[in-house]
Amino acid sequence: MSDEGPIYSLGMPIHNPQEVERLAKKGLVVVDSPDMIPPLSRIFIRAHGISSELFSTLQKHSIHIVDGTCPFVKKAQERIKLLAREGYKICIIGNGNHPEIKALQGIVEGKATVIEKKEDVTEIGKTAKLGVISQTTQDSKVFAAIVSELALRTQEMRVYNTICNATRERQDATRKLAQFVDGIIVVGGRNSANTGKLYDIARFSGIDVVWIEHAEELDRRWLSGKARVGITAGASTPDWLISQLKNTLSSRR
Amino acid sequence: MSDEGPIYSLGMPIHNPQEVERLAKKGLVVVDSPDMIPPLSRIFIRAHGISSELFSTLQKHSIHIVDGTCPFVKKAQERIKLLAREGYKICIIGNGNHPEIKALQGIVEGKATVIEKKEDVTEIGKTAKLGVISQTTQDSKVFAAIVSELALRTQEMRVYNTICNATRERQDATRKLAQFVDGIIVVGGRNSANTGKLYDIARFSGIDVVWIEHAEELDRRWLSGKARVGITAGASTPDWLISQLKNTLSSRR
Repeated sequence: MSDEGPIYSLGMPIHNPQEVERLAKKGLVVVDSPDMIPPLSRIFIRAHGISSELFSTLQKHSIHIVDGTCPFVKKAQERIKLLAREGYKICIIGNGNHPEIKALQGIVEGKATVIEKKEDVTEIGKTAKLGVISQTTQDSKVFAAIVSELALRTQEMRVYNTICNATRERQDATRKLAQFVDGIIVVGGRNSANTGKLYDIARFSGIDVVWIEHAEELDRRWLSGKARVGITAGASTPDWLISQLKNTLSSRR
Repeated sequence: MSDEGPIYSLGMPIHNPQEVERLAKKGLVVVDSPDMIPPLSRIFIRAHGISSELFSTLQKHSIHIVDGTCPFVKKAQERIKLLAREGYKICIIGNGNHPEIKALQGIVEGKATVIEKKEDVTEIGKTAKLGVISQTTQDSKVFAAIVSELALRTQEMRVYNTICNATRERQDATRKLAQFVDGIIVVGGRNSANTGKLYDIARFSGIDVVWIEHAEELDRRWLSGKARVGITAGASTPDWLISQLKNTLSSRR
């Protein structure tokens, strides 16, 4: 990577500080705003995506764009465009501060209402046609509960379940895992939305849970009295961090 | 009515035996099958509606059709046609034995899956595009709960909330009423779906409930120890039956 000069990423390429640090050594430069990217640079678009408007602007000033937008995010972006075109009032089930949702809002000029939890549905007034999409890393149970409330506030509702497969599978696996262990270690960046959902799922299942970013963070006292411990990790957690944790746990036996 | 000869109704015109008895004296003849209607008769289509196919057949052989199909049922019939045309797999939230649902099934040649309760959603396999409509007299809470389950079984879901306003208002009013009285009397035909929902709603609110078809059925012992009693009635319960009950209750004071 460094052979050809730096590559710029608008925001953290993934929500995992350890992996970002590793990539920075290879020439990745993380910037907060498009103004910080010099003209004719190489740019990396992270999985969360950006609005089509910003994409065009970046394209004009760069020599090469590596588009790492997650295909599920791309699909959600297409869905929201379609809903806007067909005159639906739009509701996004997710977190308004997350870059993925900010990009989706950019596409519909900020006109969508973002609902994070069931209690917020009152923000959607009664409406004839409601279009609903989800943050790709949403907890499917939360999504279903909000959809259920929305169904009573409209005559027609079009729902796109845009939760990504990898996310859903991780969530289902974490629910299952919780039944067979005495505690779960969640590994992933503190600012990773999908890691946070795994943490919530494990916690609500009633067992002991700890959320760490890397193996060194684990307090060995947490392990005492636990015969079986499970590990779950966010989509953005690199394999090497998980292997490290597994090694640490094995060596302590 | 009787001046011009009988008028035929395919099935009970409304699910209230007392009112049907009154209408029979005025010349209404209830038949179970279209074959039982003589040619060139006058025909009454009840609120639950019939399939467009049957409508055409009846039109050919009758001199006059009085179409009493409820406008909400008509709307649901239009919705199901649209969903079929746009290639959705169709789910009807309701009771498969109810004439309204049988008419809807007639429109889509029996291809819709009817879901009565949350546990039945497994009958809908995983599908890409799911279209959902509701029996017009469905309990909105049951509807919302089933929609919530369905949201996780499909990528795209189009939901038409076809529950009729009168039904929803009666249900909401019954829920409220239950908070202020010591018991509720539900008045309506035993085979009336919407009366049954009101009975369920009152029952689940935890107070004493009795379902009667007319005032004479009420056992006065049920009233003892109750300071305040509420009345709720199905959409098909005629006003005269409710007034009769009110008079009976007043005279017993």
